[in-house]
Amino acid sequence: MDRIPILRVKDTLLVTIQAEIQDRQALALQEDLAGEIVKHRARGVIIDISALEIVDSFIGRMLANLAAVSRVLNVHTVVVGMRPAVAMTMVELGLTLHGVKTALDMDRGLALLDVLAAAKEG
Amino acid sequence: MDRIPILRVKDTLLVTIQAEIQDRQALALQEDLAGEIVKHRARGVIIDISALEIVDSFIGRMLANLAAVSRVLNVHTVVVGMRPAVAMTMVELGLTLHGVKTALDMDRGLALLDVLAAAKEG
Repeated sequence: MDRIPILRVKDTLLVTIQAEIQDRQALALQEDLAGEIVKHRARGVIIDISALEIVDSFIGRMLANLAAVSRVLNVHTVVVGMRPAVAMTMVELGLTLHGVKTALDMDRGLALLDVLAAAKEG
Repeated sequence: MDRIPILRVKDTLLVTIQAEIQDRQALALQEDLAGEIVKHRARGVIIDISALEIVDSFIGRMLANLAAVSRVLNVHTVVVGMRPAVAMTMVELGLTLHGVKTALDMDRGLALLDVLAAAKEG
């Protein structure tokens, strides 16, 4: 089983979801992410899904779980790079990514994390 | 065939190599990277290989080709995240990643691109 790598760019962690993900990979990713957040005292997490052609309920739940794990550690998660077709399919499927923040691209995701971090400190 | 996504963080492009790559994926990545460099007027390219457990001659050639494509467009490429075991295997195999710059992690890779860009302008 290949683990999904977690990159660190300054104080932000970056996860790129590329291929279809299996149950065990999703679980391992949660574990790894929690570990990396604590290890690097990360400020925020960005999850890029630009490679995904579909977000079904499994992926949706995985994203929600990743955000929940981060939230418990007081770290914000932003999902970026959602394709227009993916957004439309999610609405059709009735998926709402409850509790998950999104942004159009990395730059906006990083900016959103800045705002959220400032609000937390303020 | 899944395409390998290319992320943009400000003026730098970021490619994460995750699974084993096939010939056609490597070719598609070259095409996509050249397109994205021109489209976003990128300053540099960072290729993360922290997920790779081995870099054989095929991967080595692919990295060299990606760097060559970028170089033709006057853009620098830095490979980051190489595992210690990968470095040792590469030396054993006699692979040198000729023409490819490396850095330990994203932060150092970005710093290296800064230096290279400054040298180009200076």
